[in-house]
Amino acid sequence: MSDVLTKVTLKKLLIDSNINDLQQYLEDLHPADILEVLRDRDLNKLEVMEKLPIRLLADVFEEMEEEEKENFLNLFPEPRQYKIVDEMTSDEIADLLSNFEPKRITRFLANIGKEAAEDVKELLTYEDDTAGGLMASEFVAINETMNVKETLKYLQSAVQDVESAYYLYVLDENDILKGIISLRDLVISTFDTKIGEIMSENVKSVPLEMDQEEVAALFEKYGYQAIPVTDENGKMLGIITVDDIIEVVREEATEDIFRLAGVNEGEIIDGSTFASVKSRLPWLSVNLVTAILAGATVGIFSDTINKVVILAAFNPIIAGMGGNAGTQSLTLIVRGIALGEFTKENAKRIFRKEALVGLINGLAIGLVIAVIGILWTNKPVFGLIVGVSMLGNMCVATIVGYLVPVTLKKLKVDPALASAVFVTTVTDMGGFFLFLGLATLLVNYLI
Amino acid sequence: MSDVLTKVTLKKLLIDSNINDLQQYLEDLHPADILEVLRDRDLNKLEVMEKLPIRLLADVFEEMEEEEKENFLNLFPEPRQYKIVDEMTSDEIADLLSNFEPKRITRFLANIGKEAAEDVKELLTYEDDTAGGLMASEFVAINETMNVKETLKYLQSAVQDVESAYYLYVLDENDILKGIISLRDLVISTFDTKIGEIMSENVKSVPLEMDQEEVAALFEKYGYQAIPVTDENGKMLGIITVDDIIEVVREEATEDIFRLAGVNEGEIIDGSTFASVKSRLPWLSVNLVTAILAGATVGIFSDTINKVVILAAFNPIIAGMGGNAGTQSLTLIVRGIALGEFTKENAKRIFRKEALVGLINGLAIGLVIAVIGILWTNKPVFGLIVGVSMLGNMCVATIVGYLVPVTLKKLKVDPALASAVFVTTVTDMGGFFLFLGLATLLVNYLI
Repeated sequence: MSDVLTKVTLKKLLIDSNINDLQQYLEDLHPADILEVLRDRDLNKLEVMEKLPIRLLADVFEEMEEEEKENFLNLFPEPRQYKIVDEMTSDEIADLLSNFEPKRITRFLANIGKEAAEDVKELLTYEDDTAGGLMASEFVAINETMNVKETLKYLQSAVQDVESAYYLYVLDENDILKGIISLRDLVISTFDTKIGEIMSENVKSVPLEMDQEEVAALFEKYGYQAIPVTDENGKMLGIITVDDIIEVVREEATEDIFRLAGVNEGEIIDGSTFASVKSRLPWLSVNLVTAILAGATVGIFSDTINKVVILAAFNPIIAGMGGNAGTQSLTLIVRGIALGEFTKENAKRIFRKEALVGLINGLAIGLVIAVIGILWTNKPVFGLIVGVSMLGNMCVATIVGYLVPVTLKKLKVDPALASAVFVTTVTDMGGFFLFLGLATLLVNYLI
Repeated sequence: MSDVLTKVTLKKLLIDSNINDLQQYLEDLHPADILEVLRDRDLNKLEVMEKLPIRLLADVFEEMEEEEKENFLNLFPEPRQYKIVDEMTSDEIADLLSNFEPKRITRFLANIGKEAAEDVKELLTYEDDTAGGLMASEFVAINETMNVKETLKYLQSAVQDVESAYYLYVLDENDILKGIISLRDLVISTFDTKIGEIMSENVKSVPLEMDQEEVAALFEKYGYQAIPVTDENGKMLGIITVDDIIEVVREEATEDIFRLAGVNEGEIIDGSTFASVKSRLPWLSVNLVTAILAGATVGIFSDTINKVVILAAFNPIIAGMGGNAGTQSLTLIVRGIALGEFTKENAKRIFRKEALVGLINGLAIGLVIAVIGILWTNKPVFGLIVGVSMLGNMCVATIVGYLVPVTLKKLKVDPALASAVFVTTVTDMGGFFLFLGLATLLVNYLI
C-alpha cells in the first residue's frame, strides 16, 4: 500500500504541529489514520484531539468502535462533548447515545441542534438490526423541476448536507419519494437537462423494520451505494449506505460461525474471561446432557461390550464419522439458508443430493472400515457389522444434517443456533445404537 | 420493499413488448430484476434477451453467476456473443473468458475492441483472489489544471467511461496517480475551482498482488467506494469497486465456515452429487485415519475396559466434551485471525484468557460429571477419575484450540483449513488416554 503519510509521519505531525500548521494537511488526513495514531498508548490523546478541527474530529469519532467512542468522548468536558456529537450524522449519534443512561441522553439531546435531536430521538426507537437501526436521516432532497445546473448550484451552496451523497432523492411537496438520481448520472448530463428526465422512477426502498440481513442482500443484488428507507406511504425517512452494509455482512457471518460452534455471537476475542465462560458454559452444559444420553446408550449394551471388548474401540469411530458427515451437510445448508441460496424451488433437489452424498460417502468409508475391522479381528462378521453401521450412520447423518436446519428455519429459529447439538446427538446415539445393537444381535459370531 | 415494477409485471412487459415499446421503460429496469425474470424455466430466454438494448443486456450479464454467464451467452450465435461481451467492463470480460478454452479466448479477444482486448489480456494474467483479479481497467482520469466546470463538461462528453465512477483520478503525463477527487467533492465545488485545489493527495492505493481479504479490510477501514491499483512506480492500472468487496467478504466468511466443517470452499449448495462427494470425501478420509488412531488408543486399554465395562460408556463423554470446548476456542481464534482482531499485541493476553476459560469450564463440567459418575457406579474413585479426566481434557482442548490456528497462521497455512481435525484428534486421543490411563492405574478401586 502506498501511504503518502505513514503512521509514524502522521503521529509526528499530529504531536508537533499546532492548530494552524495542521490546516494545510487537512485534506490529506484520513479519519481512520488519525484514529490509529490516537490508539497509541503513549499519546496524550486529548491534546492531539484538541488540535483537530471539530468537523474532522467528529469524523474520527465515526470511525471508532462502539466502546472506544464513549471512552474517547469522556476525555472532554461535557459541553465540548455536545459540540463534537453535534457534528456527527444522526445514525452515529443514535448508536452512541443508545449506550448512555437516560439522563445523559436527555442532556445531549437538549444540547445539540434541534433538527438533529428530533432525528436522533426517532432513530433511538428502532431495533439495532433493522433498516431503521442502520439508517441515517441525512440525505439530499431535490425537486424534479430543477435542471442539472440548478442542482449543481444547490449542492455547491449546501455542502454540509452532502456528507455521503451517492444519490440525490427527488421528493414531492409531501416528502414522498418520486425518483432517484446518482451523482454519476448528474455529472454526465448537460446543464439544461431537467431532473425529471434523468431520474429513475423505479426506486427500490426498504421499510424501517426490514431485517439487516435482507437489506444486505438487496445491496448485493443491486450493487447499490445507498438505499432509501420509506414509511408505508412512500414518505422518505432516511438512507442506509453501503459502508454500514460491509459491517453487517461480516457480523452476520461471524454470528453463523460462532453459533455453529456453540459460542455466543457477542463474544469478542479480546474480551474478559468471565464473558467467555458465560458465552460458552451454557452450550457446553447442553452438550453434556446429550453426551450423557449417548453414553447411556453405550451403557445399555455393556453386556455385549463385556463379551466383545473390541467394540469399545470401534464405537467412537462410527459415531465420530457420522458426526463429521452430518456437520458437513449441516454447514452447507446453514450457510445456503443465510445467503438465500436455499429456496423452495431447490429444496427437494438438495435433499436428494444430500441423501445420495451420504450413501456414496457411507459406502466408501464403510468399505474401508469393514476391511480394517476384518484385519483387526480376523472375523468377517465383525467387518460386516462395522461397515453396515458406518454406512447407516453416515446416511442418517447427512439426512439429519439437512433436516435439522431446514426444520429450525420453518420454526423461525436461526438454523445456526442449535443445529450442531441436534445433529451430533443423533449421530452419536444413532451410531452407538446401530453398531452395538447389530453386534448384540450377532454376538455369537463374534466370540 | 416497494417495487414499482413487480416481477410479474416486469415479466409480462418483457414478453409482450417489442423493442420499441420497451424504450420508454428502460431507465426503470434494473439488470438484476431482468435477470430474475430470465431465470424462469418457462421463458424463451433468447427472445427476451434479443429485445434488450445491447448495453442493458451486457449489464444483465454482469449480474449473473459465473456458470450462468456462459450458459446464457451460448444461446447466441458467436458473432453476437462478441458484441455483448464487448459492452462489459474489462474485469467482467476477464472473469468470463478465464473459464473458456484457449482457442475461444483468442477468438473473443480478436473480435472485441482493441483497447478492451489489451486490458483483458493483462487482467487474465492475475490471480483471482488478488487486487489484480478484482480490478477493472475503466476509470476516469483527469488533469489537475482543469477546473470544475471543464471537468463536468468533459464528463458530459465521455459518458461511456463513467460507468461506475465515484472518484475521478488525477494523473500526470506519465499516468502516475497524483490525487483523487470524489464526485461529491466535485459537485459541491464552485465551477471555477481548480481540480488541483480540491483533490486529495494522500491517496491510498494497492499493489496488483495484494490479497483480496486485505483489500476488503482497507475498504472497511476507510469506507471507500473504490480504491486504485497502481504499480511499483505509482502508475495507475485500474480500480476496485465496493460492490465487488461485499462479495469478497461473503466469500471469505463462507470459506472459513466451510473449511472449519471440512467442506471444500468451492462447494455450492445446489451443485452436483459428484461435486459434493469430491468436496467432502477427502476430508472424511483424513478424519477416518484420526478416528482410527483414537480407536486404537481405546484398544490399548481393552483389558481395563474388560474389567470395568462402564468405562466404555463414559469414554465418549470425556472425548466429546473436550472436542466441543476445543472447537469453541478454535472458532473464536480462527475468526479473530480472519477479521484482523488477533494481533501480536493481544496474543499473550488471549492465550491466558483461553487457558483460564478452559480451567473454569473444565472445573464446572468436571464437577457435574464426577457427581454423575459416583451416582451411576456408587464408587467415589470412579467419580474422581471421570472428573479429573474431564477437567484435564477440557484444559488441553482450549489450549490446543488456541495453539493450532495460531501455529498454522505462522506457517502461512489458512488456520481454518486443518484446525478442526487437529483439535479433535488431540481431544479424542488425549481424552481416551487420560481417562482410560487413570482408570488402569486405579483399576483395583473400581472392581
